[in-house]
Amino acid sequence: MITASKRGAAMPPSPIRKLKPYADKAIAAGKTVYQLNIGQPDIETPPAMFDALKKLGTKVIAYGPSQGIPEYQDALIKYYKKHGIELGRENIIVTNGGSEAIIMGMTVCCDPGDEILVPEPFYTNYNGFATQAAVTVRPITTRIEDDWELPDISVIERLITPKTKALMICNPNNPTGKLYGEEELRKLAYLAKKHNLFLFGDEVYREFIFSGEKHTSLLEFRDMDEHVVMMDSISKRFSACGSRIGAFVSRNKAVMQAALCFGQARLCPPTIDQLMAVPTVELGKEYFDTMVGEYKKRRDAVLEGLAKMADVEYKVPKGAFYIVMRLPVADAEDFVIWMLTEFQVNNETVMLAPAEGFYATPGLGRNEARIAFVLNVEKTKKAMEILRLALEAYRKKC
Amino acid sequence: MITASKRGAAMPPSPIRKLKPYADKAIAAGKTVYQLNIGQPDIETPPAMFDALKKLGTKVIAYGPSQGIPEYQDALIKYYKKHGIELGRENIIVTNGGSEAIIMGMTVCCDPGDEILVPEPFYTNYNGFATQAAVTVRPITTRIEDDWELPDISVIERLITPKTKALMICNPNNPTGKLYGEEELRKLAYLAKKHNLFLFGDEVYREFIFSGEKHTSLLEFRDMDEHVVMMDSISKRFSACGSRIGAFVSRNKAVMQAALCFGQARLCPPTIDQLMAVPTVELGKEYFDTMVGEYKKRRDAVLEGLAKMADVEYKVPKGAFYIVMRLPVADAEDFVIWMLTEFQVNNETVMLAPAEGFYATPGLGRNEARIAFVLNVEKTKKAMEILRLALEAYRKKC
Repeated sequence: MITASKRGAAMPPSPIRKLKPYADKAIAAGKTVYQLNIGQPDIETPPAMFDALKKLGTKVIAYGPSQGIPEYQDALIKYYKKHGIELGRENIIVTNGGSEAIIMGMTVCCDPGDEILVPEPFYTNYNGFATQAAVTVRPITTRIEDDWELPDISVIERLITPKTKALMICNPNNPTGKLYGEEELRKLAYLAKKHNLFLFGDEVYREFIFSGEKHTSLLEFRDMDEHVVMMDSISKRFSACGSRIGAFVSRNKAVMQAALCFGQARLCPPTIDQLMAVPTVELGKEYFDTMVGEYKKRRDAVLEGLAKMADVEYKVPKGAFYIVMRLPVADAEDFVIWMLTEFQVNNETVMLAPAEGFYATPGLGRNEARIAFVLNVEKTKKAMEILRLALEAYRKKC
Repeated sequence: MITASKRGAAMPPSPIRKLKPYADKAIAAGKTVYQLNIGQPDIETPPAMFDALKKLGTKVIAYGPSQGIPEYQDALIKYYKKHGIELGRENIIVTNGGSEAIIMGMTVCCDPGDEILVPEPFYTNYNGFATQAAVTVRPITTRIEDDWELPDISVIERLITPKTKALMICNPNNPTGKLYGEEELRKLAYLAKKHNLFLFGDEVYREFIFSGEKHTSLLEFRDMDEHVVMMDSISKRFSACGSRIGAFVSRNKAVMQAALCFGQARLCPPTIDQLMAVPTVELGKEYFDTMVGEYKKRRDAVLEGLAKMADVEYKVPKGAFYIVMRLPVADAEDFVIWMLTEFQVNNETVMLAPAEGFYATPGLGRNEARIAFVLNVEKTKKAMEILRLALEAYRKKC
């Protein structure tokens, strides 16, 4: 018997996908399950991406350049320029999804044993990437009662150790929906500069802002060029999760050079998917207004539903397409499993993502859950009503 | 100034792509450069892969399962069955190219600081993947004069240390073209079993065999189920390097479970490229005979050309589409740069991959170079004649 490595065995299974067997079983038994647990949008991928396939001139699906095909790099430069971010090809490496961009950041900027500080709750796969890169994610705890704001600089600073190599933030935030403004981000920039740390920004939800606020990219802090690494992806923005097209962006030359070496080792990101992504740069205000408008309606339907539930705590999410709420239950995972296995309203039930997996601090988030706004308004309304009834029934049962 | 991590800075640039700027400059100056340095086939991708695009039913490019879409997993099961290898879905994770499969093996099976023994010369990107995974590749030296055979078991065994976690072999071999038979592979299996090591097989050139010999997969050693991890890719086989579709294959349950967790973190391999790959399973003897026949003609043209050159040592490669030869020069890199910058025949020249980068032992391979059989016979013949003249001129110059 030969076992996996320590890091292989330590690798956490995805808490978002963990309860999938229960959902599969419920569905197999004929139950309708409203799956609000996973961030897979149902919005249609822009037709321009499929149209690009019709224009494929090639007869050989060849390796592209390791940093991405020039057409797509240039499309990205144009896209970022629209957001007031000036970049050149030398600042961009196209990646296998945002996932590879994050792994790249962790390996290029950190050595085994190094630590990265991230506000919790955070996108759980950061743990997986960190395990793979043999680095450790340390949490900066944020709380519902503070509207998920970052703690004071002094609190964050106390978490910095000689092993800390980077501060990381996802903005707008998955899972909380929190939109961090310039002032909050400046706290992190101040500390990154003071302690010579990298500042990682996961900005894949850049356009998902519901009330007209401006998005602040870390790349706008031009005094931080040496520190900032931004990780991006078209997955959510263009409803193209399966394309696996992301980007690793920095103005730090040493970082870009090392990242390109990693990029060369894995040869290139997928060629056809990059060609499909090129025309997305032409999608402007109308496309995003429609898409974000749809998510806003869903968010509002979720909020309307939550308002009818007793003892559920939450804050209005201003961005991304998630909300984390505190439920009047002892253990949200137990509640979700119960909804999938024992509860139903007209043979329908709801699936949420228990939030404990989004926290690194043991015990936190046990009575919290995340909803993703991935079902249309009608289905969302139904799901929220079922959730309300489920909470009532579960509390009576306990 | 904030620098990359130690591992980022230690990351070797690709020796295959390292001399590209010289080639680019020569081409920009109007020279024709026969590029025999890189393994990018010019063979057409099977039309069935493009046809699959016409049948895309989806309007949303959604995340697929982390282990790959079931249609493609099943296609792979059928493909391996044709090669006498029995597998189930639980043994296969579809990856972002063979590259990700190798990184996955190194991270799932090894901890930072662990070592992997690999016959050298080896595919240089193993170094890159190892750096990323914070493990070390240690060489088992093989030599032209021995027809690249593995050394005696006792010689290999002396290289095993407490840090050794895996033995790895690429078969047929990139860069040497060596085809390892069952007997040689059994040497490694014996040692893997005796010392409880993993046995990694990079088998992406499985079908590229020129003289009718049978390919032996490590997966055929059923007494080694716990040890064997096989890394695969459609890049060369179906001339689809830009699709980034590979596979991580093992019957070790702990390894597959850990690998799936890594797979879940990065979500999934590209969906459309998997759909394109599904029909490749129907390509049989006729397809491979034609393709491998074409590579054989090219290999023979290379051998014919080499036979005319004085003092060039080589062995007939039986597989893959490469050959490593020893040139009558002190430094092959210097020779290649000279060909690109100073030499020409009717304004044409040749590019090879200097072989030093394929060795881990310092100093080895300095007077060796790799040729990839990636140009058609006519071009190959021209290139070989130019190479002959270049060698003559270079020797006179020195």
